[in-house]
Amino acid sequence: MYAGVEGLAHVCPHGHVPPALLADPGATLGTPAELFVIPDHYVFRMLYSEGVPLEDLGVPSRDGTPVETDHRRVWQRFCENFHLFRGTPTGLWLADELVNVFGVEEKPTGESAQRIYDHLEEQIARPEFTPRALLDRFDVEVLCTTDAASSPLEHHRRLHDDGLGHVRPTFRPDAVVAIDGPAWPGEIEALGEASGMDVLDYGSFIRALEGRREAFKRMGALATDHSVTVPRTERLSDHEARTIFDRALGGEADGNDAARFAAHMLMEFACMSAEDGLVMQMHVGSFRNHHDALLARFGPDAGADIPLATEWTRNLRPLLNAYGDDPRFRLITFTLDESTYGRELAPLAGHYPAMVLGPPWWFFDSPLGMGRYLDAVVETAGINNLAGFNDDTRAFASIPARHDVWRRATCDWLAGMVVRGLVEEEDAPEMAREFAYGLAKRAYRVPETTYATR
Amino acid sequence: MYAGVEGLAHVCPHGHVPPALLADPGATLGTPAELFVIPDHYVFRMLYSEGVPLEDLGVPSRDGTPVETDHRRVWQRFCENFHLFRGTPTGLWLADELVNVFGVEEKPTGESAQRIYDHLEEQIARPEFTPRALLDRFDVEVLCTTDAASSPLEHHRRLHDDGLGHVRPTFRPDAVVAIDGPAWPGEIEALGEASGMDVLDYGSFIRALEGRREAFKRMGALATDHSVTVPRTERLSDHEARTIFDRALGGEADGNDAARFAAHMLMEFACMSAEDGLVMQMHVGSFRNHHDALLARFGPDAGADIPLATEWTRNLRPLLNAYGDDPRFRLITFTLDESTYGRELAPLAGHYPAMVLGPPWWFFDSPLGMGRYLDAVVETAGINNLAGFNDDTRAFASIPARHDVWRRATCDWLAGMVVRGLVEEEDAPEMAREFAYGLAKRAYRVPETTYATR
Amino acid sequence: MYAGVEGLAHVCPHGHVPPALLADPGATLGTPAELFVIPDHYVFRMLYSEGVPLEDLGVPSRDGTPVETDHRRVWQRFCENFHLFRGTPTGLWLADELVNVFGVEEKPTGESAQRIYDHLEEQIARPEFTPRALLDRFDVEVLCTTDAASSPLEHHRRLHDDGLGHVRPTFRPDAVVAIDGPAWPGEIEALGEASGMDVLDYGSFIRALEGRREAFKRMGALATDHSVTVPRTERLSDHEARTIFDRALGGEADGNDAARFAAHMLMEFACMSAEDGLVMQMHVGSFRNHHDALLARFGPDAGADIPLATEWTRNLRPLLNAYGDDPRFRLITFTLDESTYGRELAPLAGHYPAMVLGPPWWFFDSPLGMGRYLDAVVETAGINNLAGFNDDTRAFASIPARHDVWRRATCDWLAGMVVRGLVEEEDAPEMAREFAYGLAKRAYRVPETTYATR
Repeated sequence: MYAGVEGLAHVCPHGHVPPALLADPGATLGTPAELFVIPDHYVFRMLYSEGVPLEDLGVPSRDGTPVETDHRRVWQRFCENFHLFRGTPTGLWLADELVNVFGVEEKPTGESAQRIYDHLEEQIARPEFTPRALLDRFDVEVLCTTDAASSPLEHHRRLHDDGLGHVRPTFRPDAVVAIDGPAWPGEIEALGEASGMDVLDYGSFIRALEGRREAFKRMGALATDHSVTVPRTERLSDHEARTIFDRALGGEADGNDAARFAAHMLMEFACMSAEDGLVMQMHVGSFRNHHDALLARFGPDAGADIPLATEWTRNLRPLLNAYGDDPRFRLITFTLDESTYGRELAPLAGHYPAMVLGPPWWFFDSPLGMGRYLDAVVETAGINNLAGFNDDTRAFASIPARHDVWRRATCDWLAGMVVRGLVEEEDAPEMAREFAYGLAKRAYRVPETTYATR
Repeated sequence: MYAGVEGLAHVCPHGHVPPALLADPGATLGTPAELFVIPDHYVFRMLYSEGVPLEDLGVPSRDGTPVETDHRRVWQRFCENFHLFRGTPTGLWLADELVNVFGVEEKPTGESAQRIYDHLEEQIARPEFTPRALLDRFDVEVLCTTDAASSPLEHHRRLHDDGLGHVRPTFRPDAVVAIDGPAWPGEIEALGEASGMDVLDYGSFIRALEGRREAFKRMGALATDHSVTVPRTERLSDHEARTIFDRALGGEADGNDAARFAAHMLMEFACMSAEDGLVMQMHVGSFRNHHDALLARFGPDAGADIPLATEWTRNLRPLLNAYGDDPRFRLITFTLDESTYGRELAPLAGHYPAMVLGPPWWFFDSPLGMGRYLDAVVETAGINNLAGFNDDTRAFASIPARHDVWRRATCDWLAGMVVRGLVEEEDAPEMAREFAYGLAKRAYRVPETTYATR
Repeated sequence: MYAGVEGLAHVCPHGHVPPALLADPGATLGTPAELFVIPDHYVFRMLYSEGVPLEDLGVPSRDGTPVETDHRRVWQRFCENFHLFRGTPTGLWLADELVNVFGVEEKPTGESAQRIYDHLEEQIARPEFTPRALLDRFDVEVLCTTDAASSPLEHHRRLHDDGLGHVRPTFRPDAVVAIDGPAWPGEIEALGEASGMDVLDYGSFIRALEGRREAFKRMGALATDHSVTVPRTERLSDHEARTIFDRALGGEADGNDAARFAAHMLMEFACMSAEDGLVMQMHVGSFRNHHDALLARFGPDAGADIPLATEWTRNLRPLLNAYGDDPRFRLITFTLDESTYGRELAPLAGHYPAMVLGPPWWFFDSPLGMGRYLDAVVETAGINNLAGFNDDTRAFASIPARHDVWRRATCDWLAGMVVRGLVEEEDAPEMAREFAYGLAKRAYRVPETTYATR
């Protein structure tokens, strides 16, 4: 069964690969430390949890604290602690990348560290290891990045011009919705600039967002993405929305205003999605930046985002009642609360036509996490209410490794279901292809032409 | 091990088979669409979730919207979408029924749909496929239906008179407890009528309920059933109960009144159960009719009931403190929140003598759901604190298929426990029979005579 | 793999063995009923749940209710109901103890009960079955008991003097923190007495606690233990802390005061741990004494403690922000809410250097519970953020059985991971030894000398 999916092209409809990496034909993957350690919070948080300071790993500080600049020493520390990744998906991905992408033949240890560094450095310098070359080698049919609403999309324009239209932006407006944060005025200004209109009130805010969505679509965007702590959805009256927005412009919005405005904006974005056809993604339930001191020193995405229990049934109800049966609308949900897979999400997706379930996310994007996900959702939602896989990675070179874990996990799960008489043997190969390829393409409405026209 | 339970009689102490189907000797199973699609929300919600309108499936509307009346076309749509049920328990049940009950030999597809329809139509018309004939063929030892408190039980009287006393009613008073709903005055009137006394205040309400319970017992009832969103239990003072009831009669009860009254009535019903010996069932945690537009058009039970996280430990405490060690009392709980199996329910059942755990319910009445249930509850509660299986079906012809899934799942689980040295091999066959038959009989206090006197 | 861990010494850093049992060289295990039934709420709660009154099992009452005093009759009832433990960890432990510790060769039944009693009575009377002899036979490297903050530690002094310094106390101050309970004034008096200073205000309370911690450390303590219903942590201002404490001394503290004071004291205890190096354990989420009537008659620990859903991410944040990256501090958490393993606890332990995860606790200290735990935590936290195993038992003779279940479960889990290609075969044996021995020693900072100097 796995043989039938192993070689399929990679559909990557959601992730965090920096578009600059592919937009610039001269870009490289950097040093081994830059490739594997420094930007990857999956990796450095584990070392940190065992007492290795982030400073020693070269993670850039934003408060002026000096950090390690010798990447060979960063690499040494990483290899000395490689055993911490035993039994983890990060360990699997790292091993897979080292072996299958870069041809490393020994296990990382303190002893082998510098030899491996030499080897990697040499490989990375070769033309077949430029990001664009790897994009081809990885057989990536479509790769969606994640981009701020105010992004001028200059990298995507370059990609487009260079015939790399299968790299597509995704519209992520979180920053312009967070009306109570200190960064908001700047974000609103940037939105105004990018959209070419002054954001002076709620009405012009909405028009600016619509303008940006249109611009994203022109650059090939298929979807939007929304990260919220709680998936509360609730339409405010126009008057309330305008009043809260005015308070925010005046610097007087409080936490309650922000929560109500965010709930309202999810309704607005769903409405816009129904109109312009961009698929709406919701990533829900991460308590971001749990560790204050680390946030102050290293900024966000420092490995200190911790999940929360999440309530979907009541929270999503206004949105699903308004748009859940609209054939133009598509909602893809991601959760960090596995107890909601079978209790709330699969029953919701198994009813509302517009809703499909995103794959296991973040901590649960793992062999065992995938097994639990499939166990919990398929019996209730069937496979056709699922969105297939996405790698959600900022580590470009890990793309094949991550998809391979999913492909093996789904084949493994299907094989178990066949053995137990719960899936018919003749159905399994097609279901495996759906998991690996078909579901993601349909969920994100990836046009057939994308790949062919590269 | 499975061979030892495969042929056991079916004990069906909870379900939703319409008693009229068995009371009328001339009743038939209807058209194939009426048998498999139109009344079964497990089936049509999956088709709906993939974009098939309920109108096209012949689901009757209550707002005058025209729906498909050609059952061959309904059947055609169902078969064209049969692949949606791959990997689902509904798919298993459907396949089992088609093959084992009706002798269908090909898989439902768009191409085979009409041939299968012809075959089914022919079978259903034969005398051995009347509901009463199937009741014998299915070897149903006891079948409990679910009946409103105000039901005159005329079908059960007919069954009784015809010697079919093993079909028994279950007392379900939800409608007369929901004091804040628009339907309540009518329900109270119907209760008064059925009980032969005017419900003018809280005292006569309680007396009317006691009268109905007595009438249900005369028709063979073994149990009551209570569906609540939250399992809150709390005894009100007599004064409060009377005052709230009076407000309700005056049309002035609000949501808070209704919640407190419901919590109080669970205490009252437990008290009545301790006195009259009817086993008390609680089905907890479904957010009914999540989709407003669908409720307006098609009414309840349209596949839009979505589970909620449930708290049992604090909520059930008043009830269990009052009646949990009363040997006359028996409480059987059903949950849609699997995270409570091991955290709350098994520890409660593993302490309070009166409490036993109902089988996995609804979305979790599935091969994998059963495995998770057994994994989560047996180690803490043992098997003797479980209530065995019940099929909970409104699809009469699916009874053997559903029990068969449970029997296979429990044998499979026991075999795994034996292999791992966690259950002794010599104990397993008897445990399998307990799961399949003995536990349900004891939990619901099914009299031994039921079956023999048919 | 199991062969490599089967014979390792037992590290027992948390449990409830009474120190008197080992301090008194003449102590015996008592009658078979005293050894297996009367003090073990795991055992008698199951019998109670099936209708056997605790009175009939000889559980001592505190309200003067007469209870069974004939231990042969208690034993008879236990054996007659031994089938209730089929498929439970208690059943495994009991069988393992009977066979491997006491050489019983037949299964407990009503028929075999008295023969087994005779055999056990004979064995227990032999010198090789005294607790001290068994401590050696069990190869216990370190055994930590659990002791009230006000304990004079006289048994530990005797143990120390007798060269049994590997039996160590653990500082458990719950009783002196519970400021709103009726027992609190007496507890404070006892604390004052044990510490040799008058507790007259918040300042002297803190100094008394620090004094006791120092005394515990002198008797070899490695850790403290804190049991809370909700893991709320929050530092009060000094003024607030003093004021609340004064209210408590005046008998005027309410439930809100108690909750805030408990949250504050967790911060204080973490601060003390960072200073004196005692590892901080938190056992969270048990609703103690759920059954009022049973509490009144039999007191606490009567098998009526029921888990609650637990929130860790927000609750632990103040504590982890203050001490989570302090290398002197170590926090070990225990939960009864399995849904938090992967959602909250593993991500927290996989970030904060000070935090490691305790093994599956209580109801989940079971073969299947261990499997779920490993499945849920290792992929996110790795094994190095785990605290290995502890038996948490008050049944001294069950120690080898409990560790054996863990050793088999971890080997079984590792074998499964190897087969699926998720752990490298060459890594598995060392990981198995870490699970069985190394992790617990490091998590609790057990000095290497402990064992050698016996």
